[in-house]
Amino acid sequence: MNLDQAFEHFIPYVEKELKSLFLNIPPHLQPFYGMIGYHMGWLNEDFSPMPQKSGKRLRPILCLLACQSAGGDPNDALPAAAALELIHNFSLVHDDIQDNSATRRHRKTVWTIWGQPHAINVGDGLFAIAFLSLSSLREKISGHRLGAVYEHFASACLRLCEGQYMDMTFETQLEVSEAEYLTMIAGKTGALLGCASHLGALVSTENGFVSEKYRVFGEKLGLAFQIQDDILGIWGDPQVTGKPIADDLLKRKKTLPVIYALEREKELGGRALRDFYAQDSIAEDSIPTLLELLHELRALDYARRINHLYCDEALEQLSAIGGDPEANLLLKELVERLRERSS
Amino acid sequence: MNLDQAFEHFIPYVEKELKSLFLNIPPHLQPFYGMIGYHMGWLNEDFSPMPQKSGKRLRPILCLLACQSAGGDPNDALPAAAALELIHNFSLVHDDIQDNSATRRHRKTVWTIWGQPHAINVGDGLFAIAFLSLSSLREKISGHRLGAVYEHFASACLRLCEGQYMDMTFETQLEVSEAEYLTMIAGKTGALLGCASHLGALVSTENGFVSEKYRVFGEKLGLAFQIQDDILGIWGDPQVTGKPIADDLLKRKKTLPVIYALEREKELGGRALRDFYAQDSIAEDSIPTLLELLHELRALDYARRINHLYCDEALEQLSAIGGDPEANLLLKELVERLRERSS
Repeated sequence: MNLDQAFEHFIPYVEKELKSLFLNIPPHLQPFYGMIGYHMGWLNEDFSPMPQKSGKRLRPILCLLACQSAGGDPNDALPAAAALELIHNFSLVHDDIQDNSATRRHRKTVWTIWGQPHAINVGDGLFAIAFLSLSSLREKISGHRLGAVYEHFASACLRLCEGQYMDMTFETQLEVSEAEYLTMIAGKTGALLGCASHLGALVSTENGFVSEKYRVFGEKLGLAFQIQDDILGIWGDPQVTGKPIADDLLKRKKTLPVIYALEREKELGGRALRDFYAQDSIAEDSIPTLLELLHELRALDYARRINHLYCDEALEQLSAIGGDPEANLLLKELVERLRERSS
Repeated sequence: MNLDQAFEHFIPYVEKELKSLFLNIPPHLQPFYGMIGYHMGWLNEDFSPMPQKSGKRLRPILCLLACQSAGGDPNDALPAAAALELIHNFSLVHDDIQDNSATRRHRKTVWTIWGQPHAINVGDGLFAIAFLSLSSLREKISGHRLGAVYEHFASACLRLCEGQYMDMTFETQLEVSEAEYLTMIAGKTGALLGCASHLGALVSTENGFVSEKYRVFGEKLGLAFQIQDDILGIWGDPQVTGKPIADDLLKRKKTLPVIYALEREKELGGRALRDFYAQDSIAEDSIPTLLELLHELRALDYARRINHLYCDEALEQLSAIGGDPEANLLLKELVERLRERSS
């Protein structure tokens, strides 16, 4: 089984687990759960069923593979896998309001269709259902371990909010250091991927040292993933990313390549890039100039280097853990997929 | 010990438990936790400490008294009491955004000061910390029971969101039936008060039948509390409620007295009140006319009757449970405090 086959194999189980949380909905609440189903990619805007075209489901798969790697049956980790996907989606719904984003995955965002008050509540509902999903683990693991699962999950949710707080403050903060940036993404992206790997392992093993190693593995993977995302946000193909060209530049997002380039330019005594980022907005026709500046400052090379660094660290961590060889091959393939191609 | 003394006795423990969740905050996150501390009533807008003047802390006290009533040590339930207060406050922060409310407890709301994106995130943070707080129960109760605590808590959070959904739809829905209204408040207010009483009992007893009875008691109490709130929202003294006079009428809120009066008027073939509620807004100088209409339709009498009904049902439920006589006396006093005075 290769990674694509693993996704193909596991996703239907994850979807089934997710959908099992939305049964027997009374008529008066159907629009509420309809909005949730719309965001999850199951329903159209009029709540009619949508041909299946879900998100990547990266967190559930990571959780299931970590469970298998740590010696467990991946099926036992399905409630955790579903919980992780729900929390991820809670954060997307709220993020879209906070960022004022009108589209996601080529579709209108929840707040754009139903307004901010309902969208806030849809996110809150997803948050609650995520915790509710974990309770199905009761049949699989001891109460003691279930307590640890809840604690680590809640803790990852809080780190997500902390990362989100930092991300929002960066918008109005001209100078963001690389260290601040890495702390932010460790919360906003690393914590939940770390938690995915952690919970998968916790379902399999009582050994806290081992499961903690899986958490570190997942967090490194999360950092690599975020930096790949940063690269695609500037240099990605709009047809693949589903976002406008150089979207992060237009939004003046201070992602790793930009932060590095701003620091480098300062060292060199320049200020052309800095002046762009000091403006209230960046015009579309400045994009070629910005890309040229980033090229001169070697921003893409640097971001790729850091992406590789985290990928390598994740692989080292995985080797150090040992674990089920078949699952580990798939986890390695997952790491390689998050490695930004250097050619 | 009477109820006032019980509040005085328990609140410092609750506050200590709450504050124990906010230790060792790194400097870069202090504004994030500062916003949370502001909302909780611990900090001023500039994050300087505020002389203690917290909220009512009704949910924590109910939880601790239910724990004592069910034969346990109330101190053991403190992590649950803190979690309940945090979830209540999560819902207030988001509610203020959704309702566009500029003030709460005589102070500016979080979104008014720091904007909606941060306020959404502050609410999310409170949600996560609430679940984190529950994990301290690990030292007090078995893993099996802890699993039940998490499940019931998550389930109450979801009912809260369902209630909030209904409440928001009522704003644009002219005809709201009494049954719909009661379902809404059972979610929006009843679920969390039910949960408070339930979790307190769960900390004390392995017996699920007994703890479920406490949940029902708390939910009845919650319904009585909400209807008292509805009465005060129209006829309350602004000096006591901290809200403008007849605030709910100005906001065209469809609370129980109004729903009853609209139904009654329809039966009688009138439409004066209905015409007011069909407008986009209600002017301040219409208040005397509206109050007169509600008086003629006996809206206050009716709301009082329903409030009494739920208070009586709560008392009956409590008698049927039995439990520690000292704690039960205090719980009875709590019910009586939520009974709308008929004179």
